Amino acid sequence: MSFEAAVHAKAIQLDRTCLEMCANAGSGHPTTAMSLGHITTVLLYNTMRWLPDHPGYPSSDRLVLSEGHAVPIIYAAMADLGGAVGKGSERRPLTSDDLQHFRENDSYLDGHPNPMEGFPFFDAATGSLGQGLSVAAGLAIAARRDGISKRIYCLIGDGEAREGQITEALDLIIDYKLSSVLPIFNCNHYGQADQVSEQQSPERIAKRLEALGFDVTVIDGHDPDAIRTALTTHAEMADGGGDTPMAVVAKTVKGWGAPSVQGGGWHGKPPAGERLDQALEELNATGVSLTSALSSDEQLRIYPPVEFEPATTPEGETPSLAAAMEQWDMGLLLKSGKLATRKAFGIGLRVLGHSSERVFALDADVRNSTFTEWFAQDKDLADRFVECKIGEQNMVSAAAGLSAAGKIPFCASFGKFITRAYDQIEMAINSGANIKVVGSHCGISLAADGPSQMALPDVAWFRSFTTMRDHYGNPGCYLLQPADAYAAYGLTLAMAEHHGACYMRTARPDVEFIYDENTVFNLGKFEVLTEGRDLLIVTAGYMVHECNKALDALDRAGIDASLVDLYSIPFDADALLDLANQNGGNVLVIEDNYGGGLGSAVADAAVESGDAFTIEQLYVKRIPKSARDEEAILKQCGLHHSDIARAAAGMLGVVSV
Amino acid sequence: MSFEAAVHAKAIQLDRTCLEMCANAGSGHPTTAMSLGHITTVLLYNTMRWLPDHPGYPSSDRLVLSEGHAVPIIYAAMADLGGAVGKGSERRPLTSDDLQHFRENDSYLDGHPNPMEGFPFFDAATGSLGQGLSVAAGLAIAARRDGISKRIYCLIGDGEAREGQITEALDLIIDYKLSSVLPIFNCNHYGQADQVSEQQSPERIAKRLEALGFDVTVIDGHDPDAIRTALTTHAEMADGGGDTPMAVVAKTVKGWGAPSVQGGGWHGKPPAGERLDQALEELNATGVSLTSALSSDEQLRIYPPVEFEPATTPEGETPSLAAAMEQWDMGLLLKSGKLATRKAFGIGLRVLGHSSERVFALDADVRNSTFTEWFAQDKDLADRFVECKIGEQNMVSAAAGLSAAGKIPFCASFGKFITRAYDQIEMAINSGANIKVVGSHCGISLAADGPSQMALPDVAWFRSFTTMRDHYGNPGCYLLQPADAYAAYGLTLAMAEHHGACYMRTARPDVEFIYDENTVFNLGKFEVLTEGRDLLIVTAGYMVHECNKALDALDRAGIDASLVDLYSIPFDADALLDLANQNGGNVLVIEDNYGGGLGSAVADAAVESGDAFTIEQLYVKRIPKSARDEEAILKQCGLHHSDIARAAAGMLGVVSV
Repeated sequence: MSFEAAVHAKAIQLDRTCLEMCANAGSGHPTTAMSLGHITTVLLYNTMRWLPDHPGYPSSDRLVLSEGHAVPIIYAAMADLGGAVGKGSERRPLTSDDLQHFRENDSYLDGHPNPMEGFPFFDAATGSLGQGLSVAAGLAIAARRDGISKRIYCLIGDGEAREGQITEALDLIIDYKLSSVLPIFNCNHYGQADQVSEQQSPERIAKRLEALGFDVTVIDGHDPDAIRTALTTHAEMADGGGDTPMAVVAKTVKGWGAPSVQGGGWHGKPPAGERLDQALEELNATGVSLTSALSSDEQLRIYPPVEFEPATTPEGETPSLAAAMEQWDMGLLLKSGKLATRKAFGIGLRVLGHSSERVFALDADVRNSTFTEWFAQDKDLADRFVECKIGEQNMVSAAAGLSAAGKIPFCASFGKFITRAYDQIEMAINSGANIKVVGSHCGISLAADGPSQMALPDVAWFRSFTTMRDHYGNPGCYLLQPADAYAAYGLTLAMAEHHGACYMRTARPDVEFIYDENTVFNLGKFEVLTEGRDLLIVTAGYMVHECNKALDALDRAGIDASLVDLYSIPFDADALLDLANQNGGNVLVIEDNYGGGLGSAVADAAVESGDAFTIEQLYVKRIPKSARDEEAILKQCGLHHSDIARAAAGMLGVVSV
Repeated sequence: MSFEAAVHAKAIQLDRTCLEMCANAGSGHPTTAMSLGHITTVLLYNTMRWLPDHPGYPSSDRLVLSEGHAVPIIYAAMADLGGAVGKGSERRPLTSDDLQHFRENDSYLDGHPNPMEGFPFFDAATGSLGQGLSVAAGLAIAARRDGISKRIYCLIGDGEAREGQITEALDLIIDYKLSSVLPIFNCNHYGQADQVSEQQSPERIAKRLEALGFDVTVIDGHDPDAIRTALTTHAEMADGGGDTPMAVVAKTVKGWGAPSVQGGGWHGKPPAGERLDQALEELNATGVSLTSALSSDEQLRIYPPVEFEPATTPEGETPSLAAAMEQWDMGLLLKSGKLATRKAFGIGLRVLGHSSERVFALDADVRNSTFTEWFAQDKDLADRFVECKIGEQNMVSAAAGLSAAGKIPFCASFGKFITRAYDQIEMAINSGANIKVVGSHCGISLAADGPSQMALPDVAWFRSFTTMRDHYGNPGCYLLQPADAYAAYGLTLAMAEHHGACYMRTARPDVEFIYDENTVFNLGKFEVLTEGRDLLIVTAGYMVHECNKALDALDRAGIDASLVDLYSIPFDADALLDLANQNGGNVLVIEDNYGGGLGSAVADAAVESGDAFTIEQLYVKRIPKSARDEEAILKQCGLHHSDIARAAAGMLGVVSV
């Protein structure tokens, strides 16, 4: 039996399984899966070097299914091969019985690729479209760094190719000559609601790819020999170190082999009953005409990856902030007595780069603002810096790819622009990614540049993830707001220690030191800066400085206030409420962002306790505009230290401060 | 004096102003502005048909400055022309004295384009990059609909062109043959941190645009005649109804005319003191060599737009849900007693389309899931439906453009995918846009598809905007969660009545009716479904049904609970707390999303009152996975009605229910 017939036979077998699996689940996308039957077969049963019983083996070739809804085709193949499934270290072979439980609560086979739920074949959760190619790029960057000759295949839908992030990822692949990545565009002509635009026709996609600098091959995605030839050409080029990335545009049929389920009406609607029987019969007939022999797998064999022993990279000691700055001729800067949190982050990141080979830094053309530049410009670290240019979505998903390969990626941009990648951050959290996101110029202290550059609802959004648990049982995210350079430095190191997602807000202005070398910063903790008895002021980040000034005025008015730097969410709620009780239950929370952040976190804790507290919140309650400097914008938004002192005094019935 | 010399003289005059304005402000991006000196001059003083004293005149040509940091060049020109500035109806000419206050608190001249702060020349706030071309596309769609022959120019930075959203917008422009839009790429070779990638070189950008289907002209962006020729070619094509969109790639110099501030070190760093003097001298010298005559404006004149009287489009009456369904042969569906909120939204949207010519619908390839399809398939409405395909960022910014042209755009996709456009939504809010965002399949009731399709932190994010005020003094956003079809229908109509941003969450499952034709739904209100005295359960959306079931169990256990459908945030907090007090201060809040949402909103209100409440929150506290159906996933996440009843009973010390 020829290779061609064997691939047809296997693809038809897998396609049948997809139809049955989805019919049984009552949902899913069998026709999309069927458009990938042949490509998946050639990849998994012929081209890829991998181990079904160890799908995450470090030197294995990888497959990223960007169009996650096509996942039944992978499940079908893995069941056929007895590929390993299971959470954590509990692994067993996938069976055809498992397929009966597709999309069920106790199944490893989630509706879309979901590695953390027990399907380690995948490196990242996909299903929110347009993200997989960036993940593939991150995997390729990690492999290059590790000296592994690994190919990374990425299957992208034609409709999905409309997502701008795909173009951002293609640009990164060209910039970094990531020829080990092979983007394969599955042009089956149909999106969900309708046919794809002519802009996403195979001809147009091919032209676009060529204009971007790719070496493009257009194939019939159901022609086994054409698929094999394209994949072999890529493999030889990539393995040989070629530096012109290739892309494949595959013309396919949604619902291939079963005419009755082709066309536009079958997206996400598996045929059942008679319609299912008809589709299965059609597939059989297609099989008879194409294979014209008994099916045999003899032409299909899986090649294993080369054996690989990951280098053990001992983690080094980290110096103190002062020692690090002395070492890098920044002693004078330290002695100036003021340093922006974004700069201290840059120093911490550079220290981490030297202490661990796993640490990577990514930026989106603002490294001289976020201070990842101090990592990028260090010649020992430069090859672990990824300049993503102005494409934040791609940056975050590429970081998720780096994390999947065992790296610790720090992504930085203005906090405002990080918003572009919120969907990608959520998918990274769903993927169990060890990703650190650092947003600079957060809050209103940026002043003159105005609201288009300020992160304002970011605290509310990231706090939402602090309220739930990730797959490791940790908070879905830690939200960190350092008030000074020591805090920013300490929290940068603490983020690297923690396996999981973190978001740290840094601010533009140089600010005075509040802490010193001896202060220890831990995720989940807070710091009591002043202990009083009349009123507890809770704040974080830049606003700690403003609150400190307010304390002076309150002191002059005879008010003995406490001040807490709540630099982490989540935090030790019991300890905070104890402090509140020691202050008559009066709490004033101060934030330089829109509501739903720190103040709501304190309110949530307070009401759960059932005790009576009076909690007032000052935060940004208007859309800010430009102002000359910090003082002017704090006044504009009612957050000047005089406003804080007035609010605090008002809570205690004191009229003037 | 030739046209060429006049443009050089004017551009140099404006460039000087930019340098001085930014030096005085101590911040800003003069060198980016200078790269646009000539193009701006030819546009504003020659090509565009507009009225400086009435910048928003409806038939005027428009300029969208996507690279918002270049804004000083526009301010310089407007001051030169005495263009109108001022908030609302208070308008006065901009003066050169105003330029001294660039970026100050009381100035109309914000750091980046900010129409709502008194600069009506712009249609949208920009500065977060990559969004302007989508806004331009929205303006063009509105103009076509209104029968206005209006050209829309969009200035895009080369570094900015990396943002995937630019490609999404280019695709939409080709799909809809929006030849009135002229994208002009300002290729000055420098981003912020470094030179742009070769992927964003003028040659590569030109190739990409050609591959997308544009008719591309590459020019020297400082050659007055070349600029005029390109703009005239476009104007003749667009005014003549040509249907092949054009694009201009302009090779420019960052800091043109002043060699000492060119190159990579001057992004966002205005020269001051001697460096400023040197740059100004260089500009003078450049002027002498290029104009070789006294400057004169005689070659530059501004052409006015055609007079235009907007059609008065009377708003029609809206029928009841039942009447609408009868009218469209959906009577049987109504009689079934169950209807998904997403479907009722689709009916409401269709009703709105018939009652107001201003209503537009936009979708991102999921119209058959969000049910904007009932609008799209109505032949009377189809030309107000915009199929954006899978590009949510572009969809939202295009909607902002439609709003700027007086339309009422409704954007829909899965709530999860709406996350892609959060930055765009915030910029729309900053722009004062009258935008309605509808996220479908929100929360966990989607079940089988898994977490990649579920909106979970969305309530926390949108709630953040409900805590502050927009430029009209209204909440920055209304967050709406209808529990049944009547609520979804009523709130859809209520959104259209309100001028401002709204986000409505709809859910997948068909659900029973809770309300009837007589229930009135108002933004900012809530509905008391059951009045008890032991405990107040507060919930919204899909979870109202689950809480209703829990009430039965509680009733059997002798617990007399109250139930509130808090369908709007913000809401009447005093009225809600009164109810809580009538229920012993015991409140249980139930949500099908991550924390920081409804429960925190209730907690914020409670603690501000200073009264003692005990508030517990049940929400999604893990990353969900696929489950077969609603019941299975509610159990998985601890939100089944039995969990709710148990939690409620537990608050009252009752062990078993």
